[in-house]
Amino acid sequence: MTKQEALNILLNKVAEILAIGQVHSVFGWDSTTDGGAPVSSFGYRGNAMAFLSGESYKRIVADDTREAFETLEGDATLTAEEAALARGAARSYKLNSAIPKDELEKFIALTTEADNVWRTAKEKSDYASVEPYYAKIFDFSRRVADWRGYENHPYNALLDEYEIGLSVAALDKFFDALRLSIVPLLRKITDSGIQPKKIDGSFPIENQRLLTRELVKTVGFDTSRGRIGETVHPYCMLVNPNDVRIAVAYHEDDLLSGVYSTIHECGHAIYDQNVRADLYKYGMHDMSMGLHESQSRFLENIIGRSRAFAPVLLELLRSQFDSFKKWSADDLYSAVNIAKPSLVRIEADELTYSLHVMVRYEIEKKLVQGEVSTKDLPELWNAMYEEYLGVRPPTHALGALQDSHWAGGAVGYFPTYALGTAYSAQLLHAMEKTVDWQSGVAAGDLSCVIGWLKQNVHQDGSLYMPEEVLQRATGESFNPTYYTSYLSEKFTKLYRVSQFL
Amino acid sequence: MTKQEALNILLNKVAEILAIGQVHSVFGWDSTTDGGAPVSSFGYRGNAMAFLSGESYKRIVADDTREAFETLEGDATLTAEEAALARGAARSYKLNSAIPKDELEKFIALTTEADNVWRTAKEKSDYASVEPYYAKIFDFSRRVADWRGYENHPYNALLDEYEIGLSVAALDKFFDALRLSIVPLLRKITDSGIQPKKIDGSFPIENQRLLTRELVKTVGFDTSRGRIGETVHPYCMLVNPNDVRIAVAYHEDDLLSGVYSTIHECGHAIYDQNVRADLYKYGMHDMSMGLHESQSRFLENIIGRSRAFAPVLLELLRSQFDSFKKWSADDLYSAVNIAKPSLVRIEADELTYSLHVMVRYEIEKKLVQGEVSTKDLPELWNAMYEEYLGVRPPTHALGALQDSHWAGGAVGYFPTYALGTAYSAQLLHAMEKTVDWQSGVAAGDLSCVIGWLKQNVHQDGSLYMPEEVLQRATGESFNPTYYTSYLSEKFTKLYRVSQFL
Repeated sequence: MTKQEALNILLNKVAEILAIGQVHSVFGWDSTTDGGAPVSSFGYRGNAMAFLSGESYKRIVADDTREAFETLEGDATLTAEEAALARGAARSYKLNSAIPKDELEKFIALTTEADNVWRTAKEKSDYASVEPYYAKIFDFSRRVADWRGYENHPYNALLDEYEIGLSVAALDKFFDALRLSIVPLLRKITDSGIQPKKIDGSFPIENQRLLTRELVKTVGFDTSRGRIGETVHPYCMLVNPNDVRIAVAYHEDDLLSGVYSTIHECGHAIYDQNVRADLYKYGMHDMSMGLHESQSRFLENIIGRSRAFAPVLLELLRSQFDSFKKWSADDLYSAVNIAKPSLVRIEADELTYSLHVMVRYEIEKKLVQGEVSTKDLPELWNAMYEEYLGVRPPTHALGALQDSHWAGGAVGYFPTYALGTAYSAQLLHAMEKTVDWQSGVAAGDLSCVIGWLKQNVHQDGSLYMPEEVLQRATGESFNPTYYTSYLSEKFTKLYRVSQFL
Repeated sequence: MTKQEALNILLNKVAEILAIGQVHSVFGWDSTTDGGAPVSSFGYRGNAMAFLSGESYKRIVADDTREAFETLEGDATLTAEEAALARGAARSYKLNSAIPKDELEKFIALTTEADNVWRTAKEKSDYASVEPYYAKIFDFSRRVADWRGYENHPYNALLDEYEIGLSVAALDKFFDALRLSIVPLLRKITDSGIQPKKIDGSFPIENQRLLTRELVKTVGFDTSRGRIGETVHPYCMLVNPNDVRIAVAYHEDDLLSGVYSTIHECGHAIYDQNVRADLYKYGMHDMSMGLHESQSRFLENIIGRSRAFAPVLLELLRSQFDSFKKWSADDLYSAVNIAKPSLVRIEADELTYSLHVMVRYEIEKKLVQGEVSTKDLPELWNAMYEEYLGVRPPTHALGALQDSHWAGGAVGYFPTYALGTAYSAQLLHAMEKTVDWQSGVAAGDLSCVIGWLKQNVHQDGSLYMPEEVLQRATGESFNPTYYTSYLSEKFTKLYRVSQFL
């Protein structure tokens, strides 16, 4: 096989996989947004999803695919795009070929059904109905680890799927550092007795929708190349480079939830929108989960919860809700940064967020290791919340049933949330060396921020490995100290407590 | 190959084709409803659509598919379902294998783009921008006819795709009869000077949405196994037996347009919903276009525009619009049956509707024959409207650009609209022998109608050939006299003109 033949094979495979990806994405969007597809049709839909996954699998795990990437391996004449294409094909092949095809198909059908069961179970706070699905899903995860092989811990085989090279050893160290830093700071804050003014009241959904339209423009989401839907659990989705979508959720009694989940999803969406369109055909719109999360957190927290953004947000809020006429930018800055122990991850504040992730990390690690069973999961969950956050969920809906990930089969995904959040602080430190972002943001113009991110992170998609992207953008490899320092400085100042712990 | 092997091959192919069909449908729905996908993404989407069509094609036109249906041909031990499965596979194979695969792929990509261009062209009434696409599409149609082969007229090869065995000879006869009957009746009505009270005013979209929710329930659409969206050009779509959708359109200044297009699409949807679910795996939810249209027209016109339904509709209208408090059921009955020459097919009244179809039939016939060019299409269109209907379109948007069919590549489809409408009158005649439908409908209960249709038409899906369905339901083969008699009686009475022409 010549180099050109090998490249053509891989480009054709990617073109077909992208076509499948487009319809797969839209099918998922159709199930979950704006009322969703009829629940009675989910059985039929599961067949279609399983079929699509099988079709992708056939192209990823094929003899000619393997021959093609093996042909290109180590070829020094490849362009960066071609090298990344071959590297991506090899990685997908290895991840997928480890799993027998019939097992994968059964698993897809299982998770489609589980996701459906989970939706009802969450409404009814009924853990028992979803437990048998979780048992099968974690059992499958353990077998995936065995099929793929691993060093030291079976969980490593699952972590690597979402973030190349991520390991239990690294995460244990990372979370230990966070625990040492955040838990005492949180205690100081709680002990300080300071209680900033809260945003209370009822905020009509229709006004929140109108607010969203302006908000997404302000933060830089290009709606001419995207779409906004409404769902239960917000997410961002790439259909193709000119169709990146965010699904948001509104709560009449919780305005900030809608605002910040929208900004968060915009962070993801802008990343997708800013990748060079010519990289699409090489499959380079498939970025590291950790980096992706760094972009959503960057926009949501570092920008969206900054003092500089407060007057901008206040102006937007005032355009829809008269009650904000009485608020100052300082009031709002404090209100969007209230730090306190809470039950629900996606509504957690910036300071405690990673503790929520830590609970899930510890649980996944134990479940995959087989130390505990899914039957024990809620009790384990509740005990850890009590230990790390000092609160105990009164219902499973507010506890172990709150996230969709496990029902969807995503084991090993959660840790990237905390990792990405830590990346974002390191990126901020780098950006501040050249960009006076606070002046721009305070003036309601985020282009200096988005421009820097596009230049240093977004535009290349997955052309480079995550650690390489971080190195190129910040001049050093991952260093969690930026994150702990950022949190300590910000919250020490906000709550006027000592930063010496 | 044994009988069982052959059946298994066909059942597996159908299962995959249905999976592709599900995602294909949803992808189309996503493009066209509730705001639609970003226009800038249509190029990428075209690739996905072409891929899906190619994947269906590969399963329809395969050596093992051919071997399987050939194995089953003439096997007297097959059940009705198995025989229909084999017959369907053979028909699809023959229709599709005639077209070279690369030509089909190019055509799918072309029509995806053409549909997009048409949307903009219609808005701007700009025929020139879409003409090159029409030229290519009709050129392709002519080549399809050549590839498939035909007797007497190339158009026959295209007509047969939408309604088995339909021919120019039969349609010429059918339209001649309609022309002889309807054109003079319409003239009498116009000459009578009778002008029933019209529904005027502005009807807020939000109220029309609320009306729709009740209306669809009243006519029998099961929303727990379906979904309602909003679009430009209304349509009905099957995703799977538990997900049948209607896309409707509202106009603030034209209440009846929304009401009757909704009832029309419900007629299609109820047909799809009533097919026995166990027939799905045999591919038997793929009914004749003529029969499908007979069901939408039955609900829209025969029931929806009947005197019996008038008080029911009036009650629904009053629940949203106070202005109907002044209306009587007789007023409403007359208002929804105003017959007069008009420009737009989908807004045409029951009497003149088939004349609109006739214009399209004549044009398609000439274009496919090569007698005229797509450059001449608007002039031909306008001249025929003047000749048959006595009106000349002031813009192309109200003329040759009004329908999406040609841009979508559907040449030979239009005639089934008139044919189905004629079927519906024949079905009414049969139903009246045993069902006192007017009492049920007047009481707001359409179950006697839907029940009869389900029993006699719906439940078997495409298990039987269209002419067989008609024969079983009405005791005789297609007879257009029922249609002309029905129209003459109804409109003679409504307009108090003589029925002796």
